[in-house]
Amino acid sequence: MKTSEKTAITALGEFRLIDRLSKIIELKQPSTVKGIGDDAAVIRYKNAETVVSAELFLEGIHFDLTYTPLKHLGYKLVTAGVSDIYAMNATPRQILLSIGLSKRFAVEDIEELYAGVKIACEHYGLDLAGGDTTTSLTGLALHITAIGEAAEGKMTYRSGGKKTDLLCLTGDLGAAYMGLQLLEREKRIFAGNPQKQPQLEGYDYILRRHLKPEARKDIIDMLAQCPIVPTSMIDVSDGLASDVLHLCKQSECGVRIYLERLPIASETFRFADEIHIDAVTAALHGGDDYELLFTAPVTMHDTIQKELPNIDIIGHLCDASEGAYLLTPDNQAIELTAQGWKGI
Amino acid sequence: MKTSEKTAITALGEFRLIDRLSKIIELKQPSTVKGIGDDAAVIRYKNAETVVSAELFLEGIHFDLTYTPLKHLGYKLVTAGVSDIYAMNATPRQILLSIGLSKRFAVEDIEELYAGVKIACEHYGLDLAGGDTTTSLTGLALHITAIGEAAEGKMTYRSGGKKTDLLCLTGDLGAAYMGLQLLEREKRIFAGNPQKQPQLEGYDYILRRHLKPEARKDIIDMLAQCPIVPTSMIDVSDGLASDVLHLCKQSECGVRIYLERLPIASETFRFADEIHIDAVTAALHGGDDYELLFTAPVTMHDTIQKELPNIDIIGHLCDASEGAYLLTPDNQAIELTAQGWKGI
Repeated sequence: MKTSEKTAITALGEFRLIDRLSKIIELKQPSTVKGIGDDAAVIRYKNAETVVSAELFLEGIHFDLTYTPLKHLGYKLVTAGVSDIYAMNATPRQILLSIGLSKRFAVEDIEELYAGVKIACEHYGLDLAGGDTTTSLTGLALHITAIGEAAEGKMTYRSGGKKTDLLCLTGDLGAAYMGLQLLEREKRIFAGNPQKQPQLEGYDYILRRHLKPEARKDIIDMLAQCPIVPTSMIDVSDGLASDVLHLCKQSECGVRIYLERLPIASETFRFADEIHIDAVTAALHGGDDYELLFTAPVTMHDTIQKELPNIDIIGHLCDASEGAYLLTPDNQAIELTAQGWKGI
Repeated sequence: MKTSEKTAITALGEFRLIDRLSKIIELKQPSTVKGIGDDAAVIRYKNAETVVSAELFLEGIHFDLTYTPLKHLGYKLVTAGVSDIYAMNATPRQILLSIGLSKRFAVEDIEELYAGVKIACEHYGLDLAGGDTTTSLTGLALHITAIGEAAEGKMTYRSGGKKTDLLCLTGDLGAAYMGLQLLEREKRIFAGNPQKQPQLEGYDYILRRHLKPEARKDIIDMLAQCPIVPTSMIDVSDGLASDVLHLCKQSECGVRIYLERLPIASETFRFADEIHIDAVTAALHGGDDYELLFTAPVTMHDTIQKELPNIDIIGHLCDASEGAYLLTPDNQAIELTAQGWKGI
């Protein structure tokens, strides 16, 4: 299909491809409040706003069934779906689950996947309301559509950030990526010597962050209780660097992030050292964190520190002309760049 | 993954698998009006009902890129998505499109797919409001989420049919399946002798029905104008036999369909003869028709015949105890059975 006159997707990159594609079709429906370019679409029928997000999970790209239990995979798929709804400061209520199954799956395997979906539905307060089940000739293909609603005036877009706003982050970064590296290492060792048992002890946290990540339902509740309505918000699923750049682009701002304020768990540091990877690189580009990155007016500084002790203020927005930089303790400024897909 | 103690999916069949899976997770959210078991999920936030459907399209199962132009594929994907919304007597307004791309696709290929999606969006009055774009290690994976709304009191479920209701069908059946058989035949001939040009002349209709099917937007408008609110409705995408059985099950009714009233196009008959396939079998089990099957009270008989000349009354519902049968002109009764997946 590809000829020499055509443009390879790698030449364009993921984000420019999406930009180019989204320009093909312009929005015309009055009921579309927000289209492509945020964590989820926002639709208004009558006076009710509905938030809808989509996530495609493909075998070999998003998961490796060699070491991913199907129950965990079901849970993680739901986490990925609802994380986008929370990133709108909204509450997910329903999911649609579509599955493409190859012959090697038995009914009990699929039930195991559904058992994970069920636990996630109970945890996040969701109904599995529909979907599609079909055959796949190749690997397992999964898709989740998550649907939610926001309280009046609470919907938060990527676009509302103002220069001088504080940049706040939940949880810590890079752990899921390190968990993935650990599992990949043990898979390689096992391939070389099937007698060898995987060495996973002492790495519970990074494994859990990769295999069974949690979306930040708790933060949405906490923000409502404060109350704080963030000026902008995005979920960190592609890596902090990519995601903060999306937020900056939509908010038409630049950003400064302080390297020493990046929250990285000790286990992440420890395993990064063990395999000679820079933990900060994992934090910036690792992905699969499912944390929330949001902005709030600088006047909220004390409230955030007092009321939201689990949230780190990692930097601030600035004028777009000042660009997007990570500042090191010795005052070096490193430009933030998006990596996007690695696979294609 | 599959062991001898596990149950093969083929042993259970598609529909029993979905039944079994859907029982794992019970509905708990007050905002879920309709979950699994209809053409689409229905969700009510505040006083607005939103209809959401999901369709997964996988290479090698739902399409063959040897003979499917990407522009047609984009159009067909949207048709499949919105057909489920029309089957609720609702109007689609937005779609989310998720794409898993392998390396062999160039940017221009994806733009071609989007060009088809764009034409469909204009035709059906839709906004492309979001989705997910990712890498695929194997084939092209596509998913559409279609979102729509129904006018007050107009939502139509599979479950509202009453015994003695008329069974009505739009369009004709089996043509898409015959178009597929024609393309598969020419593909085999080409594989045997690449010098040979495909012989597709004289079969425009069945080819179009397979490559660029239309969802019945026109029928929803016509029903509103009459006005007729069907007692139940489903889209015919898996084949009439499967789909009428879904409707009967949800409506707790039996059915009688008259063989001589099945609408089958002359081109469908002609090609069926040519390749020695029974056209009625194609009509019952072929799939991909994207027509609407609905029921209406018997008192509407004359109105339907007068106001909806393009709709055929092909039979009627009856008591569930009487079963589901196709009646031949010589008064034989053939039990209707669902085929479901063939691929797995």
